Amino acid sequence: MDIFEKCYADDYIKEMIRNGQYPYFLPLSENEGNVASYKGKKLIMCGSNNYLGLTTHPKVREAAIEAIRKYGTSCTGSRYLNGSIELHETLEHEIADFVGKKAALVFSTGMQVNLGTISALIGRGDYAVLDKDSHASIYDGVKLSYGKLERFSHNDMDHLERVLQSIPEDAGKMIIVDGLFSMEGDLAPLDLLVPIAKRYGARLMVDDAHGIGVTGGGHGTSAQFGLTDEVDLIMSTFSKSFASLGGFIAGDTDVVQYIKHHARSMIFSASIQPASTAAALAALRIMVAEPEWNAKLIHNGEKMRKGFRDLGFNIGNSVTPIIPILIGDNDKTFEMAQGLFENGVFVNSVISPATPPGRQLLRTSYMATHTEEQLDQVLDTFKVVGKKVGLI
Amino acid sequence: MDIFEKCYADDYIKEMIRNGQYPYFLPLSENEGNVASYKGKKLIMCGSNNYLGLTTHPKVREAAIEAIRKYGTSCTGSRYLNGSIELHETLEHEIADFVGKKAALVFSTGMQVNLGTISALIGRGDYAVLDKDSHASIYDGVKLSYGKLERFSHNDMDHLERVLQSIPEDAGKMIIVDGLFSMEGDLAPLDLLVPIAKRYGARLMVDDAHGIGVTGGGHGTSAQFGLTDEVDLIMSTFSKSFASLGGFIAGDTDVVQYIKHHARSMIFSASIQPASTAAALAALRIMVAEPEWNAKLIHNGEKMRKGFRDLGFNIGNSVTPIIPILIGDNDKTFEMAQGLFENGVFVNSVISPATPPGRQLLRTSYMATHTEEQLDQVLDTFKVVGKKVGLI
Repeated sequence: MDIFEKCYADDYIKEMIRNGQYPYFLPLSENEGNVASYKGKKLIMCGSNNYLGLTTHPKVREAAIEAIRKYGTSCTGSRYLNGSIELHETLEHEIADFVGKKAALVFSTGMQVNLGTISALIGRGDYAVLDKDSHASIYDGVKLSYGKLERFSHNDMDHLERVLQSIPEDAGKMIIVDGLFSMEGDLAPLDLLVPIAKRYGARLMVDDAHGIGVTGGGHGTSAQFGLTDEVDLIMSTFSKSFASLGGFIAGDTDVVQYIKHHARSMIFSASIQPASTAAALAALRIMVAEPEWNAKLIHNGEKMRKGFRDLGFNIGNSVTPIIPILIGDNDKTFEMAQGLFENGVFVNSVISPATPPGRQLLRTSYMATHTEEQLDQVLDTFKVVGKKVGLI
Repeated sequence: MDIFEKCYADDYIKEMIRNGQYPYFLPLSENEGNVASYKGKKLIMCGSNNYLGLTTHPKVREAAIEAIRKYGTSCTGSRYLNGSIELHETLEHEIADFVGKKAALVFSTGMQVNLGTISALIGRGDYAVLDKDSHASIYDGVKLSYGKLERFSHNDMDHLERVLQSIPEDAGKMIIVDGLFSMEGDLAPLDLLVPIAKRYGARLMVDDAHGIGVTGGGHGTSAQFGLTDEVDLIMSTFSKSFASLGGFIAGDTDVVQYIKHHARSMIFSASIQPASTAAALAALRIMVAEPEWNAKLIHNGEKMRKGFRDLGFNIGNSVTPIIPILIGDNDKTFEMAQGLFENGVFVNSVISPATPPGRQLLRTSYMATHTEEQLDQVLDTFKVVGKKVGLI
């Protein structure tokens, strides 16, 4: 059999393209924060992870430009060999401080943090215990390891306990959860997770890709619960609130050093560029010095959750500026997204097979830089389109 | 058992640090191409992948800076959802042209190209057939797939044929090799590989991370062999000659589109930043418009291979500007690297367990921007230190 046969077969993607319904990989001509442009059309961006809006903050831009002037556009090598610069270590020290851990290690992408960290720590005979809604990169990190995967139903602590009871007592275990779940905007119950992890001798890793900058006054979900010391490992990405690309793992010094030398995605991948390092560092310093961005973001999230509830939309368990509009049907989700798009609002459609049937939704997310007028316009547009589609 | 126990144990890394012999993750204060600085000490950089020296080319810097001004510092989302910009597609079109393929797809890191592409294409019952010296990201791509891994001895076509004969005739198969091997600077024999792949109904993927910009007048190893049409998939990274970070896969339109929708490292990872996209595009355009960089690189490689051979060093089968100095002993490799460092030359030590005992080497690599004087100084330093260590 030809291994490419599957590529030439017809599928739902080709069908969507034929029907003019293809909503993915839209090449924006402008992506300047709270407004995007597609083929000349201006759209209020309600589908980004640029929560604090810092990708266009003058200090972030200037720091990135300065790094290109000083270091050039790339380190062209792995941190391990020739690709480390002092700026990487400065960022690591300030991140460790910010999230309240002893040490941090910076990778080239957030995905590579999870791949490298999890596959380094979960050895033969060890167990990774995941919330079912964990990010794909967490699953892939486990698949790259030589350990075993166990899952529990989303945020279901009884199920988690049953899973832990089924694992040999003397096996190494790590529970891994998202701090702030990226699709539905709800939080992992760290107050319940921490004592369970302790009781069963499991370590706890929190993927706070969406949490840092957002929850806990920006310090993340562990900080929001006051449990920073009890969470063993905190990871996050730079491609959300940090206005860059890359990510980090933070924890005890020995653990971080072990990861540094055993994470294949660190050793065998080129280091994060000077500009991206500088942008993340500038964003971090803004998070510290200008807490008003986080306050505005939280305000905008509250305004929109209330707005959607008042209009009669189902926003699930969101408690953050990530607000799902639960629809439960592929066609209606598309219709809704298309109507919003035509009326100048960009959101993301999450349909089956990417999500289980019944959980189809529009993922919407808000930014510190959205104005009251923009948010009112978004709510008005949802009202009009939602009525037309028959959702409210 | 505590899953962190291994992190607190003593190991060869901690021993190296105690002995002041730790040669990894050196934070450079300057990495400006052919010269680097470490704690104020200037070093001629012979350990980079910045083959064409374009990380400091004014046009590359300016393009990256311009992109930051236009788009901000990050797209903060996956290409799939909100993170695509027109610049991504421009780069894809020009790359496809440059490597002679119908379509190309740009990822955030070179590692993620391999992880996503290989795991998307190698399905249950399929076989990935790898040269044993393939890059770690190729192995990890196979581990993320649901197919089977087979390996053949480095560049050993007889062994490859025996492996292919052992695989069920009707199984899907893809042979994956590096075009230019990154450690020892030798090439895959594509002239032999192509007919073997055809005979056994296998597809052929070439990882030309180190080849593009270097071999085939810069168009890569497939072009050097005149076999671009016969190689099914060409991948490369932007963190070498392209002076950026990221990478691409290039091939037939349907195959690339299949990868686009099935590569988890594409769908579930934030897109390559505007600045990195612009830097790679500028570097590509320089490769087209200014072929003198490639010519100078080839010249520098020839000069250094001849120089090392004349001095009596063992440089293996290198035919490129990547030149290993084969030593075969951990202590002597360290001693040599340390002596070179003290005398102002930066190279990479590759020791056991990273390489099999007997294959310990210094990896050296040269750039288009190295001057004759710098290269002569490097050879002089190797002569002095090589004699002291007893290698020549």
